[in-house]
Amino acid sequence: MGSEQRRGIRLVMRIGIVGLGLMGGSLGLDLRALDHEVWGVSRQGTTCDRAVARGAVDRAGTDLTLLRGCDLIFVCTPIALVVPMVSQLRETLGGDPVITDVASVKGSIVGAIADRRFVGGHPMAGTADQGIEAALTGLFRGAAYVVTPTPTTDPAAVLLVEDLARALGSRCYRCDPVEHDQAVALISHGPVWVSAALVMTAAAGDPAGVSLAKNLASTGFASTSRIGGGNPELGLMMAQHNRGAILGMLQRYRQELDHLIADLKGEHWDRLEAYLQQTQEIRPQFVRSLSESI
Amino acid sequence: MGSEQRRGIRLVMRIGIVGLGLMGGSLGLDLRALDHEVWGVSRQGTTCDRAVARGAVDRAGTDLTLLRGCDLIFVCTPIALVVPMVSQLRETLGGDPVITDVASVKGSIVGAIADRRFVGGHPMAGTADQGIEAALTGLFRGAAYVVTPTPTTDPAAVLLVEDLARALGSRCYRCDPVEHDQAVALISHGPVWVSAALVMTAAAGDPAGVSLAKNLASTGFASTSRIGGGNPELGLMMAQHNRGAILGMLQRYRQELDHLIADLKGEHWDRLEAYLQQTQEIRPQFVRSLSESI
Repeated sequence: MGSEQRRGIRLVMRIGIVGLGLMGGSLGLDLRALDHEVWGVSRQGTTCDRAVARGAVDRAGTDLTLLRGCDLIFVCTPIALVVPMVSQLRETLGGDPVITDVASVKGSIVGAIADRRFVGGHPMAGTADQGIEAALTGLFRGAAYVVTPTPTTDPAAVLLVEDLARALGSRCYRCDPVEHDQAVALISHGPVWVSAALVMTAAAGDPAGVSLAKNLASTGFASTSRIGGGNPELGLMMAQHNRGAILGMLQRYRQELDHLIADLKGEHWDRLEAYLQQTQEIRPQFVRSLSESI
Repeated sequence: MGSEQRRGIRLVMRIGIVGLGLMGGSLGLDLRALDHEVWGVSRQGTTCDRAVARGAVDRAGTDLTLLRGCDLIFVCTPIALVVPMVSQLRETLGGDPVITDVASVKGSIVGAIADRRFVGGHPMAGTADQGIEAALTGLFRGAAYVVTPTPTTDPAAVLLVEDLARALGSRCYRCDPVEHDQAVALISHGPVWVSAALVMTAAAGDPAGVSLAKNLASTGFASTSRIGGGNPELGLMMAQHNRGAILGMLQRYRQELDHLIADLKGEHWDRLEAYLQQTQEIRPQFVRSLSESI
């Protein structure tokens, strides 16, 4: 249900998108389908042309001044560029557009931006692909969309971002930036390293055994190793920007593992069975909103 | 390509299946489609009736003597029952049928059976479901199928099992039982605990954080946690019967994790990036035979 229907009055905006990759491009496709006007900025002219050709934006260019007059701007750059980009947008544009980002860490970004009309955001959606060609309609439908206001954030700006997120079909959650980072360390940033260590372990035995393991690996290994074999730049960036929470998670994970190893050594089968019974019971609480075909 | 076509002469057999669950039932469906006569034994009469009704067997009953006259028998019982079942079949049936099993551990089973006409086997296929109703046609197509003969196994018996496995559409691998157990510890039995510990870690934080994490968990967490939230009985049985190899795997895994934690603490970003580049490069070697939709 779009914002139009809920309000009875169409709120059509001009929306800017900086960074026309998977996230920026997918936002553009859906926002245009909701009748918003979408103007995009990319560092590369060829990306601008492809974004227009794909229908992800109405207009695009390489100069930030293009976004003068936008009501709201999504910053969809790599994590490390969000903070300088928000400053640059404020300096360049004048006016008072709401600015929001889509980065998967929030503490370091929100903490560095003292700006009433900036709203930290994190749509929990994506694919393994990158770039404007990977942009998809409906990417955010059914996904969680977190906004992380601070006590000084303009409430109207928060509501505007949340309203758009709901119009994209997302489930909205509002929380503190640091709480967000701890939660995503548990279910996303930490698991990357849990999964990567598994890939390395499987590949590090004697060559004949590893060769056999490669032939025998089935869907179970494919699932467990998937995010550990993903985009290295993204995994590294999350680690650099959410290091403390990931470290805490991995240290607690290591304790779980130590208990399991001790129980296996000691043949405490009752405890180990109870452990797997618990994990079987707990896991659906984390994945209930997702298709079980994963 | 079935054995018939490759030989030019149809080798039609009477095949027995003990245990009519997911594995036994799925074998029956495919073997009957290959024109073999399939007779099944289950402890439960109702399971026998369902197996006949589903077309998984031509005849079924609760008495092992039903399998007299079979050329080959698949033992598809739980792991712990394979060794006593093979003895019982030999005592009960007379003749010299080839006997094979489908258990996911091989060292403890093959080591306990001194029988020239027993061939340890492990089709690397399955679903999350159990029981005769879960049986599927084509379950073994494209899957690895390991046979683990010993120096005293009858070569003709080995070839017969491999021939059937290929007729089911599987890729055959022949290896030592202990090598098999080490390989599956790397890619299947060990990852169950890696994945289970992740579920427990995500669920063990402060309640507000865990509640947020449950709402934010996405496809990455779903994949990584899938096998850790699976069937507890199966995970435990694999642990009990392949404890040494799983322990070895988990201890090496823990060392990988310790290195990662140390590198995160020390902010050795170059090393961490190189790590993820390696795992991105290595993983496809393990999953090349599987659909990447997993």
